[in-house]
Order: sequence, then structure tokens, then C-alpha cells
Amino acid sequence: MTSPADQLAARVAEHMFAREGLAPALGVEIEEVREGYARLAMTVRPDMTNGHGIVHGGMVFSLADCAFAYACNSRNVATVAQAASIVFLSAAEAGERLTCDAVERALEGRSGVYEMTVRSGKRVVAVFQGQSRALGKPVIPTGEA
Amino acid sequence: MTSPADQLAARVAEHMFAREGLAPALGVEIEEVREGYARLAMTVRPDMTNGHGIVHGGMVFSLADCAFAYACNSRNVATVAQAASIVFLSAAEAGERLTCDAVERALEGRSGVYEMTVRSGKRVVAVFQGQSRALGKPVIPTGEA
Amino acid sequence: MTSPADQLAARVAEHMFAREGLAPALGVEIEEVREGYARLAMTVRPDMTNGHGIVHGGMVFSLADCAFAYACNSRNVATVAQAASIVFLSAAEAGERLTCDAVERALEGRSGVYEMTVRSGKRVVAVFQGQSRALGKPVIPTGEA
Amino acid sequence: MTSPADQLAARVAEHMFAREGLAPALGVEIEEVREGYARLAMTVRPDMTNGHGIVHGGMVFSLADCAFAYACNSRNVATVAQAASIVFLSAAEAGERLTCDAVERALEGRSGVYEMTVRSGKRVVAVFQGQSRALGKPVIPTGEA
Repeated sequence: MTSPADQLAARVAEHMFAREGLAPALGVEIEEVREGYARLAMTVRPDMTNGHGIVHGGMVFSLADCAFAYACNSRNVATVAQAASIVFLSAAEAGERLTCDAVERALEGRSGVYEMTVRSGKRVVAVFQGQSRALGKPVIPTGEA
Repeated sequence: MTSPADQLAARVAEHMFAREGLAPALGVEIEEVREGYARLAMTVRPDMTNGHGIVHGGMVFSLADCAFAYACNSRNVATVAQAASIVFLSAAEAGERLTCDAVERALEGRSGVYEMTVRSGKRVVAVFQGQSRALGKPVIPTGEA
Repeated sequence: MTSPADQLAARVAEHMFAREGLAPALGVEIEEVREGYARLAMTVRPDMTNGHGIVHGGMVFSLADCAFAYACNSRNVATVAQAASIVFLSAAEAGERLTCDAVERALEGRSGVYEMTVRSGKRVVAVFQGQSRALGKPVIPTGEA
Repeated sequence: MTSPADQLAARVAEHMFAREGLAPALGVEIEEVREGYARLAMTVRPDMTNGHGIVHGGMVFSLADCAFAYACNSRNVATVAQAASIVFLSAAEAGERLTCDAVERALEGRSGVYEMTVRSGKRVVAVFQGQSRALGKPVIPTGEA
């Protein structure tokens, strides 16, 4: 049984995904969204590589940033990224399927901290720390949520 | 008159751009590359927006990461991003033309720090700090550079 | 029963603490050290405050950086901090007792990522992400460990 | 001739320094403060070292964080650090004199980005990027500034 909070999180992610340009353009798939949590996947395409022939840091960041957005908006409070830091730990090539888990680490007032881990299988590709700020309005207008 | 070091930087950027999937896919234009410096531009497309209707953080990061790569590889020493942090200061909408300056701030041994500033006109959209690590081999094979 | 790996972690932390200037000077107490994990505590003193009368960011960072060091050296492989990012979520006043948990999040080759959380009671004061690099030599010379 | 804006910046720094616990405790010296800029110095003491016998990352961060505070409060608008990232590029030993320049890189609304560079002579020890948020009240009460 899915809790009402987790059902809301899934509806918010669907609502955002439908209005978003980037995630569909990158072929991002939503594997799971719960309150304060999201798990996405994306397969590295040739147009996502850098001049060294491996996945571009910007694409790893983008996957993690998508997961961050679904996790930090999951309570239907519109929330934006204020800042982020990312550490690149291993490379990935075109054809590899990347997954990203987004986990809420702290929430104090309007500010939150989330940790995203991008993996290819068990290998960690990058760890991303995101700082969020809630705007105070709903993502899905009241009455529709 | 362009110095030999700046000419090499421009050739390395062309070499990387020709082998790269992401920068051409995003419509990134190289405006200027010098030793330890790069300036790129990119126009925000609808497929670069997030669920709030503004440019996705991943796309702002990607533009800055491209500029970072050209600046930190500019001496024809293959160099990769190890980590990065980004602060988002203002939003940008589809149709806006973003520019990014990449400036070398410090270089000690194999490690470097670069600062990228993404702007829409004079407005600062984001500031990105990148940490690089030199691999020690050339980008353009010796004899061709 | 403490595992041999956790016993080693505790011995390494004692070894480092005995040679360290800062942690004793700040009154840092080691509450627990295990393989890949450390928990420290420190009480905010008046000489740790900033011009706004609250704990200085440098002192919050220092506590977390100490915990990071014990966690990333816990396998008796000398390891240094390469970079770190910190998000400040709430303030703390002189007299408050801060705790910090350091948790290993990823380890690939010589690089690691650790997450430190500084709390005053249940309130999160800061979240710190640290990037480590192993130097390959032991902390406690072989034969003594 | 010092401009009124730079005179105000110097008065704000003196006001903060006089109320601050940490900077005097660390022996920090204010070398210069102007609008959006500060330059400090500090000599590494034995009680500022880590278990590897070199300056503790927390002390390098603290020096940079002090410089950040004077630079971002320089217009007499109370401003706090929200987040920071630091890259460590070289070590320093007890007895070395460190300097730190704090430079304003961007200011949009209540948010700012500052870059601090810690050096020992010409060698760069660390680069620190700070994210600030203005609180909207003066540092020195109106009528006294």
C-alpha cells in the first residue's frame, strides 16, 4: 500500500515531467518517487559525450538535477535548486545505463539538502549535493492535487 | 597578433569540439578561446527547460562545464573535471542567449581551479567553480598539434 | 564485540588525535569511530563566534572536517581532503553542544566522498560533503598498527 | 583618497572584528577592506595543524570565511554565509603566513557569490567560493555608521 504522501509525490513528479523540456529530451525514466525521494534512469547516448569520448559531466549533473527536482518538490511545495556541488568518481561510456537516487538529508525552514548518487551498475559515477529553497506555493494548484 | 599559446588553445578547442557529442547537440558556439580562458554562448531552447518553465539547472551547468573543459585543456594537456560547485543566481527563459566566461584561477601541480560565470546580457545566471586534474598526455597527439 | 576493522579505525583516530593541534584546541571529543564512520562533539565557546554573535562558519566546518579526517583515514590508509562543500542550515550560540556524524558515501579507486552532518540536538546546523584522496601509505606505521 | 564606500567598508569590518570571537582568537589581521573586497592574514600556529602535521583544512576555511564575511558585509547590510565550497591545492606548515583575498564575483538581489584565495607567498593553498544572503538590516545601527 502506497501512503497518501508517496502518492502525492508520484503525482507531482508526473505533473512536472509533463511540463518539462529536459527530462524527456534526455530520455530520463522515472523509476520511483516517494516523499523526499526519487530514482531515475538514463542511458548515455553519443550526443551526451565529451571530447574525451566519455559521458559529459553536464549530462551526469543533469540526470542528478532532475532527480533532485522530483525529490525536493515531492510534498507539492514548489522548490528550486539554489546551489549544488558534484564530485565525479568514475567515467561512463555511450550505451551505459545510469541510475540516480535522490535522498533528502536535511530540511530546516525553507532550506533543504539532498544527496544524489549516480551509478552505472554498482559503480558510483558521481555524488551530487543539492541545496534547495522552497517558494511556498504548490506545484499542482490546490483542488487539482 | 595572437600568441602561439593562444593559437594552440584555439586548435585544442576545435579538436575537442569536433569529437564531442554534447556541445554541438546543445548548439553551443565557441566565441573565444585563449590560454586558460574560454567564452561560449548558447541559446536556451524549449527542450532545455524544467518543470517550472525556466532553463534547467543541468543545462546551465552543461554550458559552464563545456567552457571549463576548453579552458582547462587549453595548453594541450588532457585534463578532466574532478568536481564542481554551482550557485544559481537568476532564472532564464527559452529564447534567451546565455554566455559563459571560463577563467583560470589557480594551478598547482596537476590540480587547477577555474571559475565560470554564466550571464544573460549583464545579469548573472550562475557562478560555477570547477576543480580539474591533468592526466599528463596531450589532447592533440604530438606531431599534430 | 567490535570487529578488527572497527578496532583499527579507533586506533587510527587516537593516533591522529594525539598528533593533531586543532581538535584538542577546539575541545573536540571523539564519541565513536568505526570503519568509514566517525562521530564527534564540540561545545561552542565565545571565541568561536562571528560578528553576528553566533557560531562562526569556520568552526562548524572545522568540527566537520575533523570528523571527515577520522572517517576517511579509518582503514589506516593516509588520506587527505581534496575539496569540500558545506551548506549552513541553522545557527548555534555559545554554549550549545554540536555533534557531527561522518558517513562514507562512495569509494572509487583513491577517491572517496563522505557526508558530515552537524547537529545541535535534532536541529541540523550544517551538511558538509567532503572529497578525499588516498595517499597510499599507512597512518600508523606497519608493525605498530 | 579613500571613497566614502571604502571608508564605510573599513568601519563595518572594525565593528565586526570588535564583536567577533574567532578572528582575534586565530590572530587574524585585517590588511585591507574596501567595498566588496577584503584582505586578511594569519600565521599558522601549531594548534592549527592536523594529524598529518600540516595546517588543518578547518583553519584554512576559517581564514577564508572571515575574509568572506568582511567582504560581503562591506556595504553595511548584514549578510550571512549560506553555503561554501573549498578546493585545497597545497599544504602549509606551522609558521607560514597565509593571506586571503576576498573578491565579490556576482550580486543578484539578496544573493551574492564571493571568491576567496588563500596563499602562502605566491603559492595557492586553497580557493573558496562563498554564497551569501543579505538579511536586509544594517551591521552598524543607522545613525552610528
